[in-house]
Amino acid sequence: MLNFDYYNPTHIVFGKGRIAQLDTLLSKDARVLVLYGGSSAQKTGTLDEVRKALGDRTYFEFGGIEPNPSYETLMKAVEQVKQEKVDFLLAVGGGSVIDGTKFVAAAVPYEGEPWEILETDGKKIKEALPVGTVLTLPATGSEMNRNSVVTRKSIKSKRGFHNDHVFPVFSILDPTKVYTLPPRQLANGVVDSFIHITEQYLTYPVDGMVQDEFAEGLLRTLIKIGPELLKDQKNYDLAANFMWTATLALNGLIGAGVPQDWATHMIGHELTAAFGIDHGRTLAIILPSLLQNQREAKKGKLLQYAKNVWHIDQGSDDERIDAAIEKTRHFFELLGIPTHLKDYDVGEESIDMLVKELEAHGMSQLGEHKAITPEVSRAILLASL
Amino acid sequence: MLNFDYYNPTHIVFGKGRIAQLDTLLSKDARVLVLYGGSSAQKTGTLDEVRKALGDRTYFEFGGIEPNPSYETLMKAVEQVKQEKVDFLLAVGGGSVIDGTKFVAAAVPYEGEPWEILETDGKKIKEALPVGTVLTLPATGSEMNRNSVVTRKSIKSKRGFHNDHVFPVFSILDPTKVYTLPPRQLANGVVDSFIHITEQYLTYPVDGMVQDEFAEGLLRTLIKIGPELLKDQKNYDLAANFMWTATLALNGLIGAGVPQDWATHMIGHELTAAFGIDHGRTLAIILPSLLQNQREAKKGKLLQYAKNVWHIDQGSDDERIDAAIEKTRHFFELLGIPTHLKDYDVGEESIDMLVKELEAHGMSQLGEHKAITPEVSRAILLASL
Repeated sequence: MLNFDYYNPTHIVFGKGRIAQLDTLLSKDARVLVLYGGSSAQKTGTLDEVRKALGDRTYFEFGGIEPNPSYETLMKAVEQVKQEKVDFLLAVGGGSVIDGTKFVAAAVPYEGEPWEILETDGKKIKEALPVGTVLTLPATGSEMNRNSVVTRKSIKSKRGFHNDHVFPVFSILDPTKVYTLPPRQLANGVVDSFIHITEQYLTYPVDGMVQDEFAEGLLRTLIKIGPELLKDQKNYDLAANFMWTATLALNGLIGAGVPQDWATHMIGHELTAAFGIDHGRTLAIILPSLLQNQREAKKGKLLQYAKNVWHIDQGSDDERIDAAIEKTRHFFELLGIPTHLKDYDVGEESIDMLVKELEAHGMSQLGEHKAITPEVSRAILLASL
Repeated sequence: MLNFDYYNPTHIVFGKGRIAQLDTLLSKDARVLVLYGGSSAQKTGTLDEVRKALGDRTYFEFGGIEPNPSYETLMKAVEQVKQEKVDFLLAVGGGSVIDGTKFVAAAVPYEGEPWEILETDGKKIKEALPVGTVLTLPATGSEMNRNSVVTRKSIKSKRGFHNDHVFPVFSILDPTKVYTLPPRQLANGVVDSFIHITEQYLTYPVDGMVQDEFAEGLLRTLIKIGPELLKDQKNYDLAANFMWTATLALNGLIGAGVPQDWATHMIGHELTAAFGIDHGRTLAIILPSLLQNQREAKKGKLLQYAKNVWHIDQGSDDERIDAAIEKTRHFFELLGIPTHLKDYDVGEESIDMLVKELEAHGMSQLGEHKAITPEVSRAILLASL
């Protein structure tokens, strides 16, 4: 096991009917800005539930945070916070709204041009407004971590930042919010969570038995409940297990003390930037071919994955690895997510451009061994066609 | 899955050589009291490592916190803290030292007689001094939870309390500290951790798939590494996995959203109070007969335990449950821990007294169904002879 630090102070408030608890989670004299995305927060009734729980408190609303939240939009929220002297930010939505809210929280008291926050990976953040969240779409884990990704449209740049100051103070996870999700978003969320786990698990063995047990348990849970949930979206227990799994997939726990990869995410980001493909889908395209490409470097963990996650114990090493990768791809397809670039009308002619973008963004040494050079990324992309 | 709250702000600093990090974890002008137990902290060099890391800071020391830390001893530390205007408490030891330090932290600013803290389960605590820990003996999980148990010798009362204010700010977990533990304490620690998990897992199914996966993973880890570690105590990876498992066994995570039992602990406490039997050993005595006694109420989870933890899939339901309980008992015995009262010279003549003590301490409705009455406890104790 590698040395590690683990710290996560977010208070999780989990279960049906918990949104009403906002009344005890927030001080009576808080001045709250409620941030949300599109019209679904209104249509599904979640926003009304939040308004009711806020009661007599002074609160303002900021809607319209888009998927892949933009710097340009978020800076308008920063203005509103300053103007209305807001002292608490409440994100109501999925990863994009929560990520965006974290950026607003850090940008308000930031000395200097807030884009620096992204350029410096959050290292210069000294304080942030407190953030609470009401999660509606389980996928990114943003509700219980210190990460955020923001896109600056004007310069076509998608960057992330990390800082302890943007851990949500609390996050309300009500599984019934899964009931009304568009199936496409639900499927994307299952795949996103799945690949958050593999990024922290499918590397090389360091005898992190606890971390491996937890990662394998979360993967088996997603494999079991993902397809069932898509058929039976209002099943509370399936929804609850999905919601808690998605949170635990990226709250720092399973990645503490083990190597991490994240190459699938980095290559996938370029597909979203260039072609607007949903984040979860980009991961489903890249992961199978990345695993094939890295099968020697990842051999130990791939064999363990085959055995403990997919229950494959027949055949040679190579056969078991092939079977595990095929089962992974089949799982994504079963969720209705195509796993080849051609399914998204992306052809071989785009590969050069994608590799150049990776290089331009400093993504020339990806993976747990920093061995995925632009040429390796090219091979992975070609194999994803 | 049941509704739940999960909150745990302790910063874990894990790995070899991490004690030196005290220098960055503590402010330069902290006035520190280092609390420890017997002579082993000195003999093993841990105390010297701590002193070195504290450098030029003003610090004081308070040794002699006993196993099952006593109110009488701890109140002396409270005096020293007040006299020396200490503003940070650093516990160096295992669960007893950490539990005791949490009590001191809450008692110093407490208005009123500090024993009230125990009498009111910590509910009246409004503040506490910050606590950090350097863990030497993995077992109780106290390094990452809000629990403490203190004994008042003068009235022979052992009571617990819980409060968010006593979560350690940080805990340093250096697995090499396991190298020099007496094997008896190591074995006790494995059993203690194991039964912390079963108390939160062997109840009734509520479709907490994630919690079950995590609990089963931790149990399998202990089953695998416990006996190996006793034979090879200086194996870093075994020690590291044991240390992290013991912490995760009782940091609130696996118990969030599922029923909990704790009857084995409550009955076990009476054995420690009456006969001075090590806490871990009392649990190993009670658990097998409690599971036999409660086999109908726990049937669903016992069958799951048999399959997923012990890989038993042959035989009738009854046979599989019997086999799982027998394997559990055998595991404890394999660690060198006898599992019958007679092995500790406790005979049938003591059972009445033990049952009376349980009643006197309000332990008349134990277990996840509150169905373990004094008469059921009597049957369990008789079956433990």
